[in-house]
Amino acid sequence: MAFLQGIPASEGIAIAKAFRFEPIDVKIECKKVENSTIEVNLFYEALEKTVDELKQIKEHASTEAGIENATIFDAHLLVLRDPELIEPVIDRIMKKQYNAEFAVKEITDHYIHLLLQTENEYLKERAADIKDVANRLQAHLLGIPVFDPSMVTENVIIVSEDLTPSDAALLNPSKVKGAVTNVGGKTSHAAFIAQSLNIPSVVGTKTALGDIENGDVLVVDGYTGIVHINPTPELIEEYEKKQEQTLRDLSELSWLAKERTISLDEQYFSIVGNIGSMEEAKGVIEHGGEGIGLFRTEFLFMEKKQLPTEEEQFHVYKSVLESMDGKPVVVRTIDIGGDKELPYLKLSKEMNPFLGLRGIRFCLGEQSILRTQLRALIRASAFGTLKIMFPMVAVIEEFRQGKLMFKEECEKLIEEGVEIGHIELGMMVEIPATALMIEAFAKEVDFISIGTNDLIQYTLAADRSNEQVSYLYQPYHPAILRLIKNVIDAAHKEGRSVSICGDMAGNEVAIPLLVGMGLDEFSVHSAAIIKTRAHIRKLNKAEIEKKIDILLNLPNAVEIESALENFFYKKL
Amino acid sequence: MAFLQGIPASEGIAIAKAFRFEPIDVKIECKKVENSTIEVNLFYEALEKTVDELKQIKEHASTEAGIENATIFDAHLLVLRDPELIEPVIDRIMKKQYNAEFAVKEITDHYIHLLLQTENEYLKERAADIKDVANRLQAHLLGIPVFDPSMVTENVIIVSEDLTPSDAALLNPSKVKGAVTNVGGKTSHAAFIAQSLNIPSVVGTKTALGDIENGDVLVVDGYTGIVHINPTPELIEEYEKKQEQTLRDLSELSWLAKERTISLDEQYFSIVGNIGSMEEAKGVIEHGGEGIGLFRTEFLFMEKKQLPTEEEQFHVYKSVLESMDGKPVVVRTIDIGGDKELPYLKLSKEMNPFLGLRGIRFCLGEQSILRTQLRALIRASAFGTLKIMFPMVAVIEEFRQGKLMFKEECEKLIEEGVEIGHIELGMMVEIPATALMIEAFAKEVDFISIGTNDLIQYTLAADRSNEQVSYLYQPYHPAILRLIKNVIDAAHKEGRSVSICGDMAGNEVAIPLLVGMGLDEFSVHSAAIIKTRAHIRKLNKAEIEKKIDILLNLPNAVEIESALENFFYKKL
Repeated sequence: MAFLQGIPASEGIAIAKAFRFEPIDVKIECKKVENSTIEVNLFYEALEKTVDELKQIKEHASTEAGIENATIFDAHLLVLRDPELIEPVIDRIMKKQYNAEFAVKEITDHYIHLLLQTENEYLKERAADIKDVANRLQAHLLGIPVFDPSMVTENVIIVSEDLTPSDAALLNPSKVKGAVTNVGGKTSHAAFIAQSLNIPSVVGTKTALGDIENGDVLVVDGYTGIVHINPTPELIEEYEKKQEQTLRDLSELSWLAKERTISLDEQYFSIVGNIGSMEEAKGVIEHGGEGIGLFRTEFLFMEKKQLPTEEEQFHVYKSVLESMDGKPVVVRTIDIGGDKELPYLKLSKEMNPFLGLRGIRFCLGEQSILRTQLRALIRASAFGTLKIMFPMVAVIEEFRQGKLMFKEECEKLIEEGVEIGHIELGMMVEIPATALMIEAFAKEVDFISIGTNDLIQYTLAADRSNEQVSYLYQPYHPAILRLIKNVIDAAHKEGRSVSICGDMAGNEVAIPLLVGMGLDEFSVHSAAIIKTRAHIRKLNKAEIEKKIDILLNLPNAVEIESALENFFYKKL
Repeated sequence: MAFLQGIPASEGIAIAKAFRFEPIDVKIECKKVENSTIEVNLFYEALEKTVDELKQIKEHASTEAGIENATIFDAHLLVLRDPELIEPVIDRIMKKQYNAEFAVKEITDHYIHLLLQTENEYLKERAADIKDVANRLQAHLLGIPVFDPSMVTENVIIVSEDLTPSDAALLNPSKVKGAVTNVGGKTSHAAFIAQSLNIPSVVGTKTALGDIENGDVLVVDGYTGIVHINPTPELIEEYEKKQEQTLRDLSELSWLAKERTISLDEQYFSIVGNIGSMEEAKGVIEHGGEGIGLFRTEFLFMEKKQLPTEEEQFHVYKSVLESMDGKPVVVRTIDIGGDKELPYLKLSKEMNPFLGLRGIRFCLGEQSILRTQLRALIRASAFGTLKIMFPMVAVIEEFRQGKLMFKEECEKLIEEGVEIGHIELGMMVEIPATALMIEAFAKEVDFISIGTNDLIQYTLAADRSNEQVSYLYQPYHPAILRLIKNVIDAAHKEGRSVSICGDMAGNEVAIPLLVGMGLDEFSVHSAAIIKTRAHIRKLNKAEIEKKIDILLNLPNAVEIESALENFFYKKL
C-alpha cells in the first residue's frame, strides 16, 4: 500500500480509478499517392473535421470550464486557417505526391522545430498548439480516434505530467473526480484550473506517472496532498466517510444562501460573485450572492474576430443587469494586454507584458474602444444597479481621464434622449503606487476594489505565472496586508467602501484578516459564496481587530500564518 | 531658419554639422561560382575578418561606452560561430555553386524572416543582430567598406531614426558632439546612452531624418529639446556663449573634487561613484568620489564564455579595493536574469523577465555561483574597505539565506588561514515589498542602498524599457518618495545608513528632496560627482525638511515637480 506526498492544490476527497493522461504520438510514414487531387480533397475534409471538432471542444470548454480557458482554442483554430500551413502542405501533395498526413507532418515538424529552438516560453507554447493541431489532423486522415478525455465514461482520477488549460478544457468534470500531477505548485495553472473545476487535486508529486498504473484505485486527499495508491478497504471506507461528511457539511450550509453575512459580533459584510460571462450570473444568484463584485468583460472581446459593437455589448450588459434583479453589478472595463490578447488588434509584443500596456493604459490610447464600452454600459444602466470600474490605474491622471470620458459619453447620451440610471464610478487597486496613494484616489472615486492577484505580483516583483518565483507569491506577506489595510482605512475615511475581488477574498486563512481589517465586501466565484459566508459567521470582528497590529508587524508570511493559526483556528 | 522641437534627453549644447546615420543595404546577386572550394575559403576568410572587426568594435565599446553596452556584441559573435548559420551556407556553396554572399543572404534572410514573423520584441532584436552580421559578412566578401561611425573624422551631430546600444557603441564620442533622433522618450535607451556618453541630445523629434540633410549646421539644445537647422550666425554665437558658460561653470567647479559635501546648514553627505568595471574606479577618484557606492559585477560574468573562477574574481576585487586606497567599496553580488543574460548558462526564457528569476533569487538556486563570488570577495577584503550587498531581495528569508552563505564562507576561509578584513553586509531595496517592510530588514542588515530605477518600475508596474508605458516612469511620484522616506526613517531608527544608487541620486530635481528626507549617500556615475556636490552645497537641509510632508501629500508627480520649483529653484 503505497502513497505519494504532493502539494494540495484543490480541496476535497476523490476516490476513483486512475486514468493516465498522456499525449499519444501518431506514427506517420511517407507514401507516394497515385492521385494527388484526391489526396488534397482528403486533406481538406480532415481540415474541416478538425475545425468542427475544435469548435465543439471550445464550446464544451466555455460552458464547463469558463470562457477564459476556452479562448486557447482560438489559437488552434487560427493555426488551421493559416495559409502558411495549408499552402505548403498542398504543394507537397501535388508536387511530391506525398500522402497528406506525411505532408502535414513535414510542415508542422518544421515550424515546431523552429519555435522550440527559440527557447522562448511563449513561442514554445505556440509549438504545442501546432503539435496538437497536427495530431488531430493526422488522426482524422488515418481514421484513428483522437483521445478525448471528455469522452471518459466512468469516474476517474486523471494522472498526468501537468494539467494545462488545454487539457483541463477537455476534461468532463462529471466523470473526472480528481487530478494528480507530477509537476506544479500551489499557485500553478494546474492548481487554479482544478479549483475552478472544483476537482480535488494534488500537484507536484514528482513521480505520479511513474508510480501509478491505469486502473489503480486512488484516494486523493486535496486537504493534505496525500495520494493513496490501491489502499486497503478500511482506508477507503475511512475516506468515504470523510467525503460524505464534507458533502453533508456543504449541504447543511445551503440554507445560508438565503442569509446575510453577519459576524458573531453582529457586523455585516457583503458577499458577491466574480463572473466572466453572462451565463455565470445565474450561479451567483443561486448561491446567494448579494450582487456581482467583478464582471470581467474580456470574453465579449475575445470570442469574436473583431471588436463587438455598442449594440452587442449593450444587450449583454442589459441581460446581466436584468438577471440580477436590482442587485449591484460591478463591471470592469476591458482589461486586455498583459497575459490577455486580442489577435485581431495586433498588439505589439512586449518584453514584460505584465509591466506593459494593459488595462486603462491601453484604453487611454485606444479611446474609441473604451468609449464604445462606456456608451453600451451607460445605456444598460437603466435596467439595474450598475457600477463601473477601471483596471490597472497607476496614477490619478489615468482615473481622471477615464472619468472625463465617462462623463462626456453620459452627456452625449442624455442629449440623445437616452434614459440613464445612477452609476457609481470606481477603480481597481492592483498596483503598489495606487495602494500607497489611495487617500488621493479615495477623494475622487465612488468605490474601490482590490485586485489582490496583481497587487501581490507587483509588490513582490514576482510573475504569478512563473513557477521559478512562485515561492514569492505570498498573499499573507505583511507588505501586502499593510497595503490592503492602508486602502481600507483611507477609503473609509472618505466614506468609500472597499471590496476584494482576487483569490484572497475566498481564502480560508485570509478571511479572518480581511474581516479584522474591516473589508466591506468579499467578491468570490459563485461556488465559494456559501463557504465564505459560513466562515465569516464564525468570526468575531472586534476580537480580530485587536490582533491586527501585532500581525502586521511580524516580519514575514510564515510567522503571520502561524500566528493566525494560534489566534483563530484553535478555537474554530 | 527652421527648428524642431523634441524631447531633451541629455543635457548640454552641441553645434556641428549633421551626419545622417542610416543603415546601408548591400545589393546581392546570385552567381554560379566555378570553384566551390575557393568560394568556401573566401567565406571562411570573411568570417574571420568579421569576427576580428566585431571584437575590435566590442573593445572600443567597452572602453568608450561602458561594458554594459559592449556585451551586445557577444550576441553578434555568437551568430558568427553558429553552426546553423555556417553549415547551410557551405552546403549551398558546395552543392548549388552559389557565390558566398548570396548563400549568406539566403540563409540569413530565412532566419530573419522567421524571427520577424514571431512579432516578439526579443526575437525581433535577434533578427537585427543577424542582419548586422550578414551585412558585415557580405561587405567583406564584396570588398565594400562597412560604414563605421567610429571612423567619423570631423565633428558631427548624428541624426538617426533611433539610437540603439549597438549604434551607440560604434560612436566615437570625441567626434560625435550631439545626437538627434526621430523616436524615443526621456527614459528611452537612446536617452540613457546619450547621457552615459555625455552627448547633448534631443530625441522624439519625429521628423529629424526627413527635415535634416547631411551637412546642415545644427544647434542641439539638450536643455529645452530644440534643434535649430542652419541657424543665423547670431543664433550660433548666442549658443556658443551658452556652451562656453556651461564649460566655464563646470571647470570652475573642479576645485570641488577635493572638498566635502556640506549643505548650507552644515550637514554632511557622502558622494560616491557607480562603476561597472575595474577601469572606472580611477574616474571616481579623479572626480573626488568618497568611495564606490555600487560596483556592478556582471561584467566579470558577461565578458567570458564561462563562469569566472574564484581566482580571476579575487584579482579584480583586490585591484579595485587597492585602487580606492581605503575608501569604502560597495560590491553588488551578481544580478543576472531580468534584462541581463549569460548565454553560457542557458537560462530559461521567461514571459516577464523583470518579474522573474533574477538577482538573489537566481543565486539562491545556483548557490555555487554566489559562494564562489563571496569567497573571492572575502579574500579581497584584506586589501581595502569592502561592503557587500545582495540585489533583488524581496523577503527576509532571502537575505537570511544569503547572509548564512556569507558566514559559512567566512568561517571556511578563516579555517584555511586566510586574512579577512571587516566586511559590512547590506542589501538593495528595489522591490516595493522590501521598502514597505524595511524596519524588519534594518534590524538584520549593516547598510541599505536603494535602487530607484527598479523600485520605480515595480511600484508603478511599468517596464522602464517599454516606450509605450514610459509616461509612468515617474521618479517624483509621491508613492516613490514615500517609500524612499519610509526606508530612510526606518533605517535611521536602527542606526543604518542609506544610499541611493539609481539615476535619481544624480537628478537635479530629486536632489533637494533626497537631502530633505535625510539620505546619507548619493551614488552617481563619476562625471556627475562634482555637479551633485555643488548642488547640495547650495541647499539648506533643515529648511527643506519642513516642506517634505507637504510635498509627499501632493497627489501626483506633476504637482510635486511644480511645488519643488516654487520652493527651491526660484532662490537658486
